[in-house]
Amino acid sequence: MIGAWSYQFIVNIQKLIYTTHITCSLEVVFLQGLINDLKAVLGETRVLTDPVEVEAYTRDYTWNSLRLICPEPVAEGCLVVRPENTKEVSEVVKIAGRYKIPVIPRGGGTGIVAGSVPLQPSIIISMERMNRILELDEENLMITCEAAVRLKDLVDLFAQHEKLYFPLHPGDESAHVGGMVSTNAGGVRAVRHGVMRDQVKGLEVVLPTGEILCFGGSEGKLVKNNAGYDLMHLFIGSEGTLGIITRVTLRLVPKTKASGTLIISFNSRKEAFAAVPAIIREGIIPVAIEYVEKDQIVKTAGVLDKTWPAKEGIADLIFILAEDSDEALYNKGMLIEEICRRFNMAGSVIAQSKKDQRDILEIRSHLFPAIEKDIVDVMDATVPRGRLCEFIEEVERLAERYNTRIPLLAHAGDGNLHTFVLKEDGKIPWYYNELKAKFYQTAVKLGGTVTGEHGVGMLRLKELPLQFCVKELEIMRQIKKVFDPEGILNPGKKIPD
Amino acid sequence: MIGAWSYQFIVNIQKLIYTTHITCSLEVVFLQGLINDLKAVLGETRVLTDPVEVEAYTRDYTWNSLRLICPEPVAEGCLVVRPENTKEVSEVVKIAGRYKIPVIPRGGGTGIVAGSVPLQPSIIISMERMNRILELDEENLMITCEAAVRLKDLVDLFAQHEKLYFPLHPGDESAHVGGMVSTNAGGVRAVRHGVMRDQVKGLEVVLPTGEILCFGGSEGKLVKNNAGYDLMHLFIGSEGTLGIITRVTLRLVPKTKASGTLIISFNSRKEAFAAVPAIIREGIIPVAIEYVEKDQIVKTAGVLDKTWPAKEGIADLIFILAEDSDEALYNKGMLIEEICRRFNMAGSVIAQSKKDQRDILEIRSHLFPAIEKDIVDVMDATVPRGRLCEFIEEVERLAERYNTRIPLLAHAGDGNLHTFVLKEDGKIPWYYNELKAKFYQTAVKLGGTVTGEHGVGMLRLKELPLQFCVKELEIMRQIKKVFDPEGILNPGKKIPD
Repeated sequence: MIGAWSYQFIVNIQKLIYTTHITCSLEVVFLQGLINDLKAVLGETRVLTDPVEVEAYTRDYTWNSLRLICPEPVAEGCLVVRPENTKEVSEVVKIAGRYKIPVIPRGGGTGIVAGSVPLQPSIIISMERMNRILELDEENLMITCEAAVRLKDLVDLFAQHEKLYFPLHPGDESAHVGGMVSTNAGGVRAVRHGVMRDQVKGLEVVLPTGEILCFGGSEGKLVKNNAGYDLMHLFIGSEGTLGIITRVTLRLVPKTKASGTLIISFNSRKEAFAAVPAIIREGIIPVAIEYVEKDQIVKTAGVLDKTWPAKEGIADLIFILAEDSDEALYNKGMLIEEICRRFNMAGSVIAQSKKDQRDILEIRSHLFPAIEKDIVDVMDATVPRGRLCEFIEEVERLAERYNTRIPLLAHAGDGNLHTFVLKEDGKIPWYYNELKAKFYQTAVKLGGTVTGEHGVGMLRLKELPLQFCVKELEIMRQIKKVFDPEGILNPGKKIPD
Repeated sequence: MIGAWSYQFIVNIQKLIYTTHITCSLEVVFLQGLINDLKAVLGETRVLTDPVEVEAYTRDYTWNSLRLICPEPVAEGCLVVRPENTKEVSEVVKIAGRYKIPVIPRGGGTGIVAGSVPLQPSIIISMERMNRILELDEENLMITCEAAVRLKDLVDLFAQHEKLYFPLHPGDESAHVGGMVSTNAGGVRAVRHGVMRDQVKGLEVVLPTGEILCFGGSEGKLVKNNAGYDLMHLFIGSEGTLGIITRVTLRLVPKTKASGTLIISFNSRKEAFAAVPAIIREGIIPVAIEYVEKDQIVKTAGVLDKTWPAKEGIADLIFILAEDSDEALYNKGMLIEEICRRFNMAGSVIAQSKKDQRDILEIRSHLFPAIEKDIVDVMDATVPRGRLCEFIEEVERLAERYNTRIPLLAHAGDGNLHTFVLKEDGKIPWYYNELKAKFYQTAVKLGGTVTGEHGVGMLRLKELPLQFCVKELEIMRQIKKVFDPEGILNPGKKIPD
């Protein structure tokens, strides 16, 4: 049967045909066979073949923000399918297996490392129609969602809830929970509550071979579960290479009674970063400790027609505090200030009204959009938080060496540093690769990782050997093979040897 | 070279020789070769070959408490080695690979599912000498330990510490951290702080092929880390089958200022279990919610020459509370009482003095030792905590059906239920296997697992197919092969088809 032929092979013939203006029934039969099989499962309207429609599904935010270093997606030969349930996802994957065509799972498309981008003719499985919140289980403090429930849906739901909420906020609110799990998203609220990995209690996934598995028990609601190897944690952060996440159960936490946002300003980067471990060692665990630079944040506030409330200094730490009483909140705030004074605090501002808190976070969350047109790359190294100062010293040495500025943004409480490489004359500067290599080498030397939260995708593949030995990369390749022997799921490029 | 022969094969010849009273130089050369190779790495005194000394290393607590259902370890042909550093562990594993002899990693030997017991001639790697606390890192709120640091060492260390502590207490204090990680130990304090998995930030491991890997960055201190598949989480709970854990980095949490232990008594099991999800849904997350039965706990107190303070009712919930102020503690306690009244609370007792709190926990932690001589098996199912009442109903039906009592002990806040199968006339009752199967089937039907915290070992292997489909078991087998192609590490028995 023609179905067993490689789709890529047929597409190559197809290209040959187009360029030589010969007609040939072979590719027509093949392509039509694939489309017919998909339509038999999904109906006419949920299989997109129109190149213009398909094109919109081939890019994520990487292409918006980091287009200079982003691989060009291949839309030619791609189809988009929009399943409505897990069974349909499984059927699509089985069809893809028969035709040996790659499958690219797609969530909200908010990734910035080109993690779900087709580089060859593929079936793009857009999860967008699996967007129902299935159960809010207050007895177990858990919520079960289909993969395409957005972060915004969770934010809206819990804004109305009296007692509970989902504690993370890992970036753009149009991100899907499926994508947030498959990329192990982090974001600003990880200091107290951890990253996505720490919230996931259950998953339903479709394997590249079409089988449907549930992790964390059939309901995904276990607090303790020690049977066999933990395949669920292997899936978290696997970026759609081991299977397609169709259902997610997340833990919830009780709301606290008092919240406040404290901005403390410093006259140098190093003083700000040095204050962070000093605060943590006192046993103070805010919800978030963010680092921003005054010039960028003031500019961003201006773009939004708002005012950044902290005037002094050049570097700010933003503390999101949440405690069970106003008194506890006040005490924590005072203690933080007291510690920061030892690091030459230049000024402090506390926001307790909901509006002021929201404004600060809104300005903070627009920092990246405000700067993105000027940048080539946003790096994502993470080091142990006690090593941030050493890391910053090296960043400053690098800036001097290449005679450039390296603006920073950091989830300082997590040791997660986003440094920006700026364009020069609208282009990639000559030193980009050198600088990047040195930056990540330093991170690894300090006990760090080449990606704290953005993930690997296509953009960080080359950096993996800095962090992993040959044996580790080989183990990862073999694990991929265990789940996906034909290598059809989100195949990307080969992991570098 | 003889080294490439299977050690098992030689031991078989050895047995033949013993039984036929023939002498043969072959096995002597072989065994002596192995011993010489090990002694070349470890010196004379750290390779134990005396059968009496070796015997003591072949059993864990399973054999003490559940000897009726425990597989008999094989001491014949076993050697014990006691490495002092990671390099030595690696060398031993490489030697084992050359001789194709199984390797059994051994921690504190406190497991109760026969998880580190040789069933064939093996090298037992006792980690006992790798017992140094390497670093208490207050800036990162982490502690780094060699594998054989005991739970007791952590308890003692943090009893003296002003601000920080390690929040879990998963059972016997002679357990090693390496074992606690490799079994993903749970215990009583999981409601607020989670299980071992939630505490581990970094691991150093020796693979079955001798390579040494570090997970969580070279220092194991990352809060965010998204590079590649998470091999660290695959190791947690893998029970020494994928590699040998040599170093562990654990997160610490700040001490709270006020603590208290509240006992609330009920007149029925069901009322006690029904109260638990009602408390959780109010957003109250105590450190622990334990369930005990009055007759057992009063008897246990008697054995210890102490008095159980709660007199009323037949079933008690013990709440360990820890808050940042006496007022917050009092408020939480009052709220719990108020909720429990809705479930016909029979009485309540609060302990706030350190001594009274310690007494309650001491009695609670002796419950199992006090009952163990009467029991055949302690089961370890876990269900979503909202399903505990349904589960209990089934347990009561089973007790009626087999005309027996099924005493209970539960980490109720975690949905983790330990039911005891009692001996009849000192023997395994006829219905044991039937009852066990029905118990675990019910757990799985309710979204549960066949082991919440004890692990699989040899004792729960047969139950795995209740929870996992053929495909999942096959994936686990293949993952084992990726790490351990020769199958030499803690080989146990084959996972059932």
